[in-house]
Amino acid sequence: MHSKPLILVTNDDGITAPGLRNLISIMDEIGEVVVIAPDSPQSGMGHAITLDSTIYCDLITNDDRNKEEYRCSGTPADCVKMAVSEVLDRKPDLCVSGINHGSNSSINILYSGTMSAAIEAGIEGIPAIGFSLLDFSWNADFKKLKQHIKKIALEVLKNGLPEGVVLNVNFPKLEEGKDFKGIRISRQARANWKEEFDKRVNPQGKEYYWLTGKFKYLDEGEDTDIWALENDYISVVPVHFDLTAHRFINDLKEWKL
Amino acid sequence: MHSKPLILVTNDDGITAPGLRNLISIMDEIGEVVVIAPDSPQSGMGHAITLDSTIYCDLITNDDRNKEEYRCSGTPADCVKMAVSEVLDRKPDLCVSGINHGSNSSINILYSGTMSAAIEAGIEGIPAIGFSLLDFSWNADFKKLKQHIKKIALEVLKNGLPEGVVLNVNFPKLEEGKDFKGIRISRQARANWKEEFDKRVNPQGKEYYWLTGKFKYLDEGEDTDIWALENDYISVVPVHFDLTAHRFINDLKEWKL
Repeated sequence: MHSKPLILVTNDDGITAPGLRNLISIMDEIGEVVVIAPDSPQSGMGHAITLDSTIYCDLITNDDRNKEEYRCSGTPADCVKMAVSEVLDRKPDLCVSGINHGSNSSINILYSGTMSAAIEAGIEGIPAIGFSLLDFSWNADFKKLKQHIKKIALEVLKNGLPEGVVLNVNFPKLEEGKDFKGIRISRQARANWKEEFDKRVNPQGKEYYWLTGKFKYLDEGEDTDIWALENDYISVVPVHFDLTAHRFINDLKEWKL
Repeated sequence: MHSKPLILVTNDDGITAPGLRNLISIMDEIGEVVVIAPDSPQSGMGHAITLDSTIYCDLITNDDRNKEEYRCSGTPADCVKMAVSEVLDRKPDLCVSGINHGSNSSINILYSGTMSAAIEAGIEGIPAIGFSLLDFSWNADFKKLKQHIKKIALEVLKNGLPEGVVLNVNFPKLEEGKDFKGIRISRQARANWKEEFDKRVNPQGKEYYWLTGKFKYLDEGEDTDIWALENDYISVVPVHFDLTAHRFINDLKEWKL
């Protein structure tokens, strides 16, 4: 018997990120915490896994706490696989990923290492939540998130989640003096990125690019994550990883393939 | 006016892969082909994009054909973004990705660079198809796939695809003398991987891992991609990238968050 729930904590900004440190300290109040996080930033890593290369996973000592923490050379999805298969002696009761420095709302979820870790945990049958704050700054202020993250985590521990569902929680960046208006259960907004590659020339005279772009909001609904965030609500989207477009199956059966 | 459709071809096994070369030769019979593919293998890359590093994209001359081909240092999703934003002078009429050497059925779609390229094209509003053959061999025999790939591509060019939907086409590996039984429109089977990390020691005495695992089929339906493939059918799954678990939204609204 374990009196406290076992909580796996990971992220995609790497083991030194303030967002992760904040998430660890919140989870410490709820359960027994094990941290397995990438040894370097993995933003935009999507659901990548390491097939063609080696993975290192080292127990590290962290000065300010007496908990198990591992730094892993793999992707966020690798971290979860490593945790479940090699490191933990029992299945965790909860996996939390983040707090991401930056948004994982709308189409960004596809590119998100934070959410891929949560989804990987969901694939393994572990209730999982990804947390993100719409502030890329390393010095982002996570204080106001604490009570909400704790409550959401406790509710997931209490209620569980349906098979194949994880939560994508995004917090808006608040203006000075403002507070969150509440929580909105939302759907993923339709949107994409209009890329603007920044073309440069390297010191050897060869052209290269940086990927940049502008976010294009293509949705008009007030039930979307983007709408919630733009109106100072915390957005919670239930996410699944059955990518089948069920609504199109019958139409497709009519095609002459 | 362009008399022939413009077809973007990419993959995740890299620009030298036989699967890609076969796909190019099939598309040559249908339209004007531009190839932008990774300069190295990108299997398991999921929907990763290159944010923290530079991207090279070079026009290369290929001896056996007089077509535009680019090798790109980025991920499969980067290749599509680069094509749309920097290389092509008009929006392609079709994007095809593959032919992947290996399966992208069931949960493998999440880890798949091949399918992330198709999905990225879908996000850009381009009708897109990922093709995979359940044979990891570099010398896999793609001959029997040709007529089916051509037909599916022509049907997509003729009918288009609904907004937000792309196709995931997987071909079974046939035993000698057998032929495909036909095409089954399928749904993504429930499954996961039971990881088995292969732990080794490097020449410096440090432990490291290789990610390996066994596929666990968790579905009993006869309408799944796995069922189709195991019964020598070609599987076609319509795929979308709205990850919202719509069925759980109302339940979640009842939670005390």
